[in-house]
Amino acid sequence: MKLSKLVGERFKEKPSDCVVESHALMVRGGYMKYVASGIYSSYMPLKRITRKIENILREEMDKIDGQEVQFPVVMPATIWQESGRYEAIGKEMVRFNDRNNSPHVLGMTHEEAAVHLVREYGQTYNNYPFMIYQIQTKFRDEARPKAGLMRVREFTMKDAYSFHTSQQDLEEYYDKCHKAYERIFERVGVPGVISVASDSGMMGGNISHEFMLLSDIGEDSIAICSECDYRANMEAAENINDYVRTSPSEELTLVHTPNKHTIEEVCSFLNSSERNSCKAVVYQRNSDDKYIVLFLRGDLEANETKLTNYLGFDIHPATITEDCGLNAGFIGPVKLEGDFIVLYDNSLKNMNNVVCGANVIDYHYTGLDVSRDLNSVEFHDFAKIQEGGICPKCGKHAIKISRGIEVGNIFQLGTKYTKSMQMTYVDSDGNSQYPIMGCYGIGVGRLAASICEAHHDDYGPIWPKAIAPYQVHLCAVRSDNQEVKELADKLYEELQNKGVEVIYDDRDVSAGIMFSDADLLGVPVRVIVSPRNIKQGVVEIVARDKSFSESAPIDTALNDIMKRL
Amino acid sequence: MKLSKLVGERFKEKPSDCVVESHALMVRGGYMKYVASGIYSSYMPLKRITRKIENILREEMDKIDGQEVQFPVVMPATIWQESGRYEAIGKEMVRFNDRNNSPHVLGMTHEEAAVHLVREYGQTYNNYPFMIYQIQTKFRDEARPKAGLMRVREFTMKDAYSFHTSQQDLEEYYDKCHKAYERIFERVGVPGVISVASDSGMMGGNISHEFMLLSDIGEDSIAICSECDYRANMEAAENINDYVRTSPSEELTLVHTPNKHTIEEVCSFLNSSERNSCKAVVYQRNSDDKYIVLFLRGDLEANETKLTNYLGFDIHPATITEDCGLNAGFIGPVKLEGDFIVLYDNSLKNMNNVVCGANVIDYHYTGLDVSRDLNSVEFHDFAKIQEGGICPKCGKHAIKISRGIEVGNIFQLGTKYTKSMQMTYVDSDGNSQYPIMGCYGIGVGRLAASICEAHHDDYGPIWPKAIAPYQVHLCAVRSDNQEVKELADKLYEELQNKGVEVIYDDRDVSAGIMFSDADLLGVPVRVIVSPRNIKQGVVEIVARDKSFSESAPIDTALNDIMKRL
Repeated sequence: MKLSKLVGERFKEKPSDCVVESHALMVRGGYMKYVASGIYSSYMPLKRITRKIENILREEMDKIDGQEVQFPVVMPATIWQESGRYEAIGKEMVRFNDRNNSPHVLGMTHEEAAVHLVREYGQTYNNYPFMIYQIQTKFRDEARPKAGLMRVREFTMKDAYSFHTSQQDLEEYYDKCHKAYERIFERVGVPGVISVASDSGMMGGNISHEFMLLSDIGEDSIAICSECDYRANMEAAENINDYVRTSPSEELTLVHTPNKHTIEEVCSFLNSSERNSCKAVVYQRNSDDKYIVLFLRGDLEANETKLTNYLGFDIHPATITEDCGLNAGFIGPVKLEGDFIVLYDNSLKNMNNVVCGANVIDYHYTGLDVSRDLNSVEFHDFAKIQEGGICPKCGKHAIKISRGIEVGNIFQLGTKYTKSMQMTYVDSDGNSQYPIMGCYGIGVGRLAASICEAHHDDYGPIWPKAIAPYQVHLCAVRSDNQEVKELADKLYEELQNKGVEVIYDDRDVSAGIMFSDADLLGVPVRVIVSPRNIKQGVVEIVARDKSFSESAPIDTALNDIMKRL
Repeated sequence: MKLSKLVGERFKEKPSDCVVESHALMVRGGYMKYVASGIYSSYMPLKRITRKIENILREEMDKIDGQEVQFPVVMPATIWQESGRYEAIGKEMVRFNDRNNSPHVLGMTHEEAAVHLVREYGQTYNNYPFMIYQIQTKFRDEARPKAGLMRVREFTMKDAYSFHTSQQDLEEYYDKCHKAYERIFERVGVPGVISVASDSGMMGGNISHEFMLLSDIGEDSIAICSECDYRANMEAAENINDYVRTSPSEELTLVHTPNKHTIEEVCSFLNSSERNSCKAVVYQRNSDDKYIVLFLRGDLEANETKLTNYLGFDIHPATITEDCGLNAGFIGPVKLEGDFIVLYDNSLKNMNNVVCGANVIDYHYTGLDVSRDLNSVEFHDFAKIQEGGICPKCGKHAIKISRGIEVGNIFQLGTKYTKSMQMTYVDSDGNSQYPIMGCYGIGVGRLAASICEAHHDDYGPIWPKAIAPYQVHLCAVRSDNQEVKELADKLYEELQNKGVEVIYDDRDVSAGIMFSDADLLGVPVRVIVSPRNIKQGVVEIVARDKSFSESAPIDTALNDIMKRL
């Protein structure tokens, strides 16, 4: 490909709407163009990258006996009604009526379509296990698309679905797929991706893992133990309580705390520790705005994912009105009266001498003894794990919190979909059974952007060889010079004849423009033909990642370039 | 791939809802599954076929300097409002509001997206010409999806868009793309596809061609001249009038034609020829139901496409009410009074002694002389060309009407989209100009089904080598026989090591089931390992299309198979 003919524009200025580097560089480099919020068109360089990623995904899925199929983007509501997700999923699923007023959806995931496709084939016991996958466009109407390809509304995804007749078989396959994912991330150039235990969210099932590229721009918080191999998404990480009473319980005492609303203000006023206080966090149920009051230790934060999973419905932070019965800033577990759902976090269990709200304006209690003063309440895990927190696996205070980009996920779905959609087989004993499913996703565009996050400098992406849009970037500096043009043309032809993908900058532009454009295209090996080099009888061969730079004699240049690929 | 593990079901009975062979065979062979009207999922064999077709499309597009890009499936209404098609296109375009109540559409074609992507790049004169293409899912909410993959709502399409600075450059590229299309149809195994002049419809522009696979099940009628190379879609074929007066004009005479409504009844009653009559065909404008009365020769049919193109708005066959002012069955061009749009077909020009309606119930005229009795009316081409009609190119009565499946189309779009979407460049003289566009489409699924239509027998598809899901279908007849299993396993491995795509029927089923499944999978070369063959020291190598059948000695079997690929 001649760069003079490459459709797309490259430019120097960082676009003002780009908050992450991969986004800025992929816009500046002519990889993608904004069409609407979370919707982009791709120019050829990005299309070449994503096609290479897709081929790697395909190879690795085929290696674990995956069969490539294709599900529709547009699906009838009926199959989503069967699973119950037509009602369960919110606004992120696009719903529309077709010309015959029949409700349809845009596929944001394809469990329903997968079960629909194999429901008959799966009636035969002998046909198990099997895995089907597709690489297809999906649409998820995200509330807040951002960071370029990191969080979009329309995206291409590799999604795979496996079917099994036993939990053990699923687990074995799950491990196989886990290893395939490790190979994939290694092959595309991000071997540092780690897997973490995760929350299964709307997918259902119990065990699931996310593959995370650690990065400061990541949207996810990950709890990693520095003493053992425990790694979990903060949404899923259990927060362990190791509270031990250190002094006898005092009396429950009402104290005047005028205008002290926050737990910080109260503790500072009473000269007590936040770790020995109890705070309230209030939510409301989305469906009817019923109040949910969560009590937890003053220094902890509520984990909404755990809360939602426990409650089984969606919630939002509360708006506390004058007549709702809650005294904002003074809410406490003693004598709290009203029609609220009240929850207690594990962290409060067994605590004594606690400061808490008194449900009266400008008053708190001191000396709360949770076991003595609260009537046989239940405690659950609703708090976020913290930096320095206790590892749920090894029990040491060794938790570190890191940021990560989720580049893949795998789920043990169980029978959620086969049960709801009535997919059964008859087992060897003649009993009707529901097959057990797993599902396995990787977003292609986000992976491309993540690779760019992991591999770039100030001047552009540094694409790993396996997914680079081209292997060689050939620069003819001063292409108006006859000797330069002839040698560059010759190398271009010879490299192409050897099957090398070459982008050939044949433009009559300055070396500065040429090199900055080459930096933006991020091709691993750059070959520079220039009058000065020719005078010295060489061409320069330079790595985009600066790992090598050599002057190769013109006579052996072709071979020397080939050696670097 | 082992057939025992291939997801999907094959069966013998023709599904009752399948009206065309390709549909029936592709359902029976486990290629696809119905999800909703015009929406299918694909199993692996079809996915392999369509991927091979896509790779051929890609190679041929790359050969004519195409750059693969990707446009979104979901687009904001805004870019379609720019071109005016948001309003112009009817229910076949899916429109929905996203969570922020912003209107979006599902892409059914991507001219707008193409202009949007290159609007800035195209500002520079030197960047022309260029062509971009994508292979992407599209959705068109067809009123009547039918015939399996022939007419669907969701489909994968290769669509290409070229941009030029002169009509001549467009025409040269158009020819180049025409040749690429010929190569594509030859490579995928349907070299008999012909190109015909077509109507540009909603795409705009003047010159366009459709690529047609002649087939009785085709939805299109094509006019082909048996004397010259004229070929056109009937929608676009000009209907030539060679009327010559043969007798002097009689008087215009009112005649009583009680209860004679149709032109056949009237002509039979008056003992005159339909070719010497004038009939009325009545339509209504979609927007306000205004009546449109078309007069044409009694033996001809109206061509709605020509009518719509002339009128510039959409119409539907009229409902004639009692008070509309039209006397159904007796409508004629003389003394027709009322607020109608009245049109005259070329076929009436210069006619005399014509029978026509008198606009009075139970009365017609005889002796109409169009030149004498109608006040300076204009004639246009509104009639369908007929079998035996006059070729618009060579002038001979040599038109044959055939049926065809449209498997591709190319359009010279002109400046319709660049003008409406304000894409301009500054030419070498410093003047602002609109680039000239061409667009070029091929539907992947319909092409696959068309190939099946062209290549099948009663037992299944006969896939051409270049797109067959596998190259070799290896049957181990009596796989419970140790010798059979060992030899078949060995051949399976050896063939795969040589890079051959093999589907290996390793099931313990009868030879009958094995061969009928093999017929349904349509793989070009079948290799049969059986106890009887082994006893004779051979394996059978048989062509799916029956072009060869040989017994190869076991020792040389691998080589003999390779020779047949």
